[in-house]
Amino acid sequence: MSLPEYQKVEVTANIPYPVFLGAQLEALGEYLHSQFQDVEHILIITNPQVAKLYAERLQKGLLVDYRVNFLFVPAGETEKSLERLSQLTTAALRFGADRHTLVIALGGGVIGDLAGFFASVFMRGIRLIQVPTTLLAQVDSSIGGKVAVNHPAGKNILGAFYPPRAVWTDFTTLESLPWEEVENGLAESIKHALIEDSGLFEFFETEEESLKRRDPLIWREMVTRSSTVKVRIVSQDEREQGRRALLNLGHSFGHALETEMNYRGVTHGQGVSIGLVAAAHLANAKGLMTMAEVDRIKRLLNKFGLPTKITEIVETTIKDPQVLLQLMQADKKNQGGRKILILPHGIGRAVISKECTDAEILDAWNQVI
Amino acid sequence: MSLPEYQKVEVTANIPYPVFLGAQLEALGEYLHSQFQDVEHILIITNPQVAKLYAERLQKGLLVDYRVNFLFVPAGETEKSLERLSQLTTAALRFGADRHTLVIALGGGVIGDLAGFFASVFMRGIRLIQVPTTLLAQVDSSIGGKVAVNHPAGKNILGAFYPPRAVWTDFTTLESLPWEEVENGLAESIKHALIEDSGLFEFFETEEESLKRRDPLIWREMVTRSSTVKVRIVSQDEREQGRRALLNLGHSFGHALETEMNYRGVTHGQGVSIGLVAAAHLANAKGLMTMAEVDRIKRLLNKFGLPTKITEIVETTIKDPQVLLQLMQADKKNQGGRKILILPHGIGRAVISKECTDAEILDAWNQVI
Repeated sequence: MSLPEYQKVEVTANIPYPVFLGAQLEALGEYLHSQFQDVEHILIITNPQVAKLYAERLQKGLLVDYRVNFLFVPAGETEKSLERLSQLTTAALRFGADRHTLVIALGGGVIGDLAGFFASVFMRGIRLIQVPTTLLAQVDSSIGGKVAVNHPAGKNILGAFYPPRAVWTDFTTLESLPWEEVENGLAESIKHALIEDSGLFEFFETEEESLKRRDPLIWREMVTRSSTVKVRIVSQDEREQGRRALLNLGHSFGHALETEMNYRGVTHGQGVSIGLVAAAHLANAKGLMTMAEVDRIKRLLNKFGLPTKITEIVETTIKDPQVLLQLMQADKKNQGGRKILILPHGIGRAVISKECTDAEILDAWNQVI
Repeated sequence: MSLPEYQKVEVTANIPYPVFLGAQLEALGEYLHSQFQDVEHILIITNPQVAKLYAERLQKGLLVDYRVNFLFVPAGETEKSLERLSQLTTAALRFGADRHTLVIALGGGVIGDLAGFFASVFMRGIRLIQVPTTLLAQVDSSIGGKVAVNHPAGKNILGAFYPPRAVWTDFTTLESLPWEEVENGLAESIKHALIEDSGLFEFFETEEESLKRRDPLIWREMVTRSSTVKVRIVSQDEREQGRRALLNLGHSFGHALETEMNYRGVTHGQGVSIGLVAAAHLANAKGLMTMAEVDRIKRLLNKFGLPTKITEIVETTIKDPQVLLQLMQADKKNQGGRKILILPHGIGRAVISKECTDAEILDAWNQVI
């Protein structure tokens, strides 16, 4: 079966940039050569597993006259730290990196966030290409310019809005992705469907089987539709002063859970999945969603193996939602101590709510504990 | 004697912002109230000595309904570190800081750089007002949006271009400034004169006595003229892709010296002063400047107590310029391993040079050792 050529979608932000959907890793070198004539040095920031799979394909396309160095980062959310940033800096300088160096973030969400933050602050900012290799990174984190590291007090507390020069998405990297990683991306894709694409939500419901057996054409459609939701929203509101906040649906709850568990024993997708259910319950309590719709969301998440209750995550023993409520204090959306939450409004629409009391939020947590 | 009202100069960068020259600390509150209606929480980042002198005046003007917290940072260049950034983050979150918090950087260059970098990355960027209280900060570092912390491998290696919402400059804070601090600012002011204002250079030569006894009207003129050079250059080239690099005159040498001495026993002004002399010797070797002009620069620096040789700095024992040459590798202007230097071209003009060999740079170092 021959797949269609790649598709180019433009993020029309303050500094616009292209997202290449279905491009080939091997072809990135030619693109770089055509776009960035003054680049002499490339730093590829990646993790050892990803490098083993894709470094050769990527390098094959790089023209011979670049100096190329790899910076390896172990897998795991805990790597998104100031300490790792400092180590990357030391290594980059040792390799002779300068303001004209170009960074390629080759990997999933952790690599994209960390390498992106490094590129945003190294010598006050050097050029960045996002090459997402996981479903989560392809449909979500590589698009929109958000980069960050974590802080003991909360996730993504230190970061920047730093648009990449391009996002280079090769769908073939999804073929060998472990199912746990697929789930991470599905949670974000389903979130996108909930926010503004009820048709995509139905697509997930009807194409369950094809998606599970990774039918390439169905996957291509899902990734393309889901990425396009993200491109559209961040193009409307790059700096999250309004509508972009909708993309945080499920994340205020999810981040609190991830922080409490110290990013161990819970994946980001699991956190988001449980967060979506908690937000749906809260929306139901606020009259924004019927119980039938809440159940429909839960059913879809379960179909793809995503949890809808904390007890489904094996390694946790969280009993008291007060702890989780406390961790929601550090949420970046909050204002003047008031918690600001994103709530689904039916399926295919979401709203920003400043009206949720701590008691209501605790009730929502209790629905998923 | 009654001084004229404040003067407003606009930096016309990507995001424009005003620089208020000769404004009053007490009046800042009213300005904030008129410009930023949604601010509820203010973080004042400062050091204990500066706070003792000016916090009361600043607070007096803040309207009663802000929540105001102070974050104190000890004095010293070594405070510009990722560790301090992390501590500021912890403290800010404890005080309930959120995306709507406004940061006031009250102090000199270290506070401006550190608080500015904190504001640029905290929750991906919160609003920043620069309130410079030293001559160096007023004529130079508070203007132009460069913020950074240091890294063991070099000065200002991690940072951002992050324009403040306003620069609020109160000249009265200069009245009690220790002479050592005055020197820091004079070195940068003389640098500005060298780059593009030969009239200002002559002003320094003729007004030596009035400047030394801190005549308010002469000081006001010097600070205003010198700030205006900075405003003009950064307005032309905010991101240092061309002309702004000229402002690094003397700094490639100076930073290497500061880094080698671990920021102890040498002030930034002393580093710049020696750097200006080294750059002048290099310019002379390149035929860009006569020996008479080199001597004129040295004479002016000496008049104001600024060193023109490393041996004039008491605490150093640097004998080997190779070490210093090595430290120039990490300079942010370099490209592909080539050192890029700023050289004076006569007095009142400067150029970017990619043509200096290591041997020539060593010769220049030897002139100031």
